Amino acid sequence: MKITGAEIFKSVEDIRATSPLIHNITNYVVMNNTANALLAIGASPVMIHAEEEVEDMAAIASALVINIGTISAPWVRGMFKAFAKARSKGVPVIIDPVGAGATPYRTRTIRDLISAGQPTIIRGNASEIMALIDDKMQTKGVDSTAGSNEAVHAAQSIGEKHKCAICVSGAVDYIVFENRIVKVANGHPMMTKVTGLGCTATALCGAFAAVENNPLVAAAKAMAVMGIAGEMAASRSAGPGSLQMHFLDILYRLTEDDITRHLKIEE
Amino acid sequence: MKITGAEIFKSVEDIRATSPLIHNITNYVVMNNTANALLAIGASPVMIHAEEEVEDMAAIASALVINIGTISAPWVRGMFKAFAKARSKGVPVIIDPVGAGATPYRTRTIRDLISAGQPTIIRGNASEIMALIDDKMQTKGVDSTAGSNEAVHAAQSIGEKHKCAICVSGAVDYIVFENRIVKVANGHPMMTKVTGLGCTATALCGAFAAVENNPLVAAAKAMAVMGIAGEMAASRSAGPGSLQMHFLDILYRLTEDDITRHLKIEE
Amino acid sequence: MKITGAEIFKSVEDIRATSPLIHNITNYVVMNNTANALLAIGASPVMIHAEEEVEDMAAIASALVINIGTISAPWVRGMFKAFAKARSKGVPVIIDPVGAGATPYRTRTIRDLISAGQPTIIRGNASEIMALIDDKMQTKGVDSTAGSNEAVHAAQSIGEKHKCAICVSGAVDYIVFENRIVKVANGHPMMTKVTGLGCTATALCGAFAAVENNPLVAAAKAMAVMGIAGEMAASRSAGPGSLQMHFLDILYRLTEDDITRHLKIEE
Repeated sequence: MKITGAEIFKSVEDIRATSPLIHNITNYVVMNNTANALLAIGASPVMIHAEEEVEDMAAIASALVINIGTISAPWVRGMFKAFAKARSKGVPVIIDPVGAGATPYRTRTIRDLISAGQPTIIRGNASEIMALIDDKMQTKGVDSTAGSNEAVHAAQSIGEKHKCAICVSGAVDYIVFENRIVKVANGHPMMTKVTGLGCTATALCGAFAAVENNPLVAAAKAMAVMGIAGEMAASRSAGPGSLQMHFLDILYRLTEDDITRHLKIEE
Repeated sequence: MKITGAEIFKSVEDIRATSPLIHNITNYVVMNNTANALLAIGASPVMIHAEEEVEDMAAIASALVINIGTISAPWVRGMFKAFAKARSKGVPVIIDPVGAGATPYRTRTIRDLISAGQPTIIRGNASEIMALIDDKMQTKGVDSTAGSNEAVHAAQSIGEKHKCAICVSGAVDYIVFENRIVKVANGHPMMTKVTGLGCTATALCGAFAAVENNPLVAAAKAMAVMGIAGEMAASRSAGPGSLQMHFLDILYRLTEDDITRHLKIEE
Repeated sequence: MKITGAEIFKSVEDIRATSPLIHNITNYVVMNNTANALLAIGASPVMIHAEEEVEDMAAIASALVINIGTISAPWVRGMFKAFAKARSKGVPVIIDPVGAGATPYRTRTIRDLISAGQPTIIRGNASEIMALIDDKMQTKGVDSTAGSNEAVHAAQSIGEKHKCAICVSGAVDYIVFENRIVKVANGHPMMTKVTGLGCTATALCGAFAAVENNPLVAAAKAMAVMGIAGEMAASRSAGPGSLQMHFLDILYRLTEDDITRHLKIEE
């Protein structure tokens, strides 16, 4: 059942060939990076959040990515509307609970959102995922205060309840769905010094979910590509400024050989 | 009548000498790039959108750039107010109909906006321009689904109706105004993999319109500089990440010789 | 009393060791850069602006940074709430009066904000600082129209009235507090061609204020690190695109020797 480099690259080729339209309702901090990462992998990003038009856009998208990083009431209304429309049209919905656990407003909003529809994939760090069900979980701003492995039980409960794949990202990423657990050990510590690479990972989950029906496989492929491009970029970077640049260049040129040589995946 | 490299560079020197204040009401995704491109060419960008202050800013700007990429109701109100004030003061107004045709809200808003005042230049891709008058035109998110040459007739109609120059950008850019059509064939396909370079082109139209009265000439000069800097950047870039960086460096150092050597313009 | 390179580096080490949570309510243009600069120096940035949650976040932050670059009414409400909560909890508050003097709305808002609480540090360019008390001061968009030295008297008055340190940044930065004036002469002209480096300086003031109690010393250390990293970056950059990248890499790797070799500080 182990996902191979060839299978991952097949999805990259599918994205490049079909350039799926990925509708993002995301935060101000990362919009530019997210759009660039989606373009670099071959997808077609669009960032639209207004209540007046989110349904029209979500209805024709190949995936919808919702990220609560810099939410306010009008954006949350747009997220609910887009989510409902996407699900009614069978469009996969990927959710990033940025900073869940950091404030009550944030925790309440993301729980309501997840309960209102059925997400396809939820990707967050360990404390964000735990905060989805554990009232005592405290997130420090947007940085995790828990280890990924601690969050796996929470992920399994949430996944079961909402019938979706959960990706707990960290030094090792855990992707859980039904009875499967996939671990991806790619990535580099310098990636945590570039803002929004977690959000980029979520957006890539959207691109892969547009060409791969199994949500666990889509998320695992996205996390592998993310981690591989990140470690290749880190190896040629003096710091986080150049990492960000090389990351996009590498995504754009990613080959099957790059994936196969670096892939660290386990099931 | 053909626009020469020397004439284009003369405008670059004018921008550098006078650093015109360019008031942008633009989208969240590209604000940073747009500001950086305007700074690199020598202009002085400002991003202000609130109803409470757009008129004060537009009134003293050398050009106003309106871009509907991530609109919502409060921003649209700011756009209408700024537009009216700019026109009453003789400030050139450049409009970017991002994603026109992608949703009814977007199409309606941009048509209302254009009809409410008299833009100086409208710059969009082929399907965005066609969507300004053709109800059947469908834009795929923010990417064009039509060829630039198909849009030239639409551009001529819109330009005649609104007495403004229209720039249809693509592999070849067509700039139409009154009875003239200028074609600029500079640029590089990798530019489409960097988010917001179209929006940057629109912002540069603002910088050139601040120092050049003829709207067709201003737009053609901006598109030539855009395309030349883009192809010079692409030639030294491994991918879209480095293209974005080199693009700014090249704009900053652009010489008359760079322009003359690369210019592909026809009338 | 002169601040030494060793003392500055000590604060850098403190930031790296404790990764203080810096709560930013800042403008759309610079959010990404600001977050990246804070990460590169070792802090933990969070960008949250909604009324519903700013108080919860400000209460647990190590510093609050408020920047009025792209304000509108809902954001201003969030700024007031966060400011009040931060002060009640003893959290240092750093304010950036972007474009003060450019429009009446902007000038009025920033004056009200500063009067509503007691900032720890205010950092702006010369005309922004002067516009805080001088009704005749006109800022050209967000660029200064006055010299830093002209603004020192205004800075002293404002600092005395509001009991806070004022940093007037420019080719030479003046930091005033009580009876001290510190001058930092680091930096490079090319930095003015990268959008938001002033805003980044303000954010770094937040990171240093989180580990250094004296507001004048915190601001001076931040401005020295900013200027040193900027000039080191400029020396290896062909233009503002690469400057931005190198700047982050250099912040990330900054050594005591880098600081000591470049430091130009006077009191």
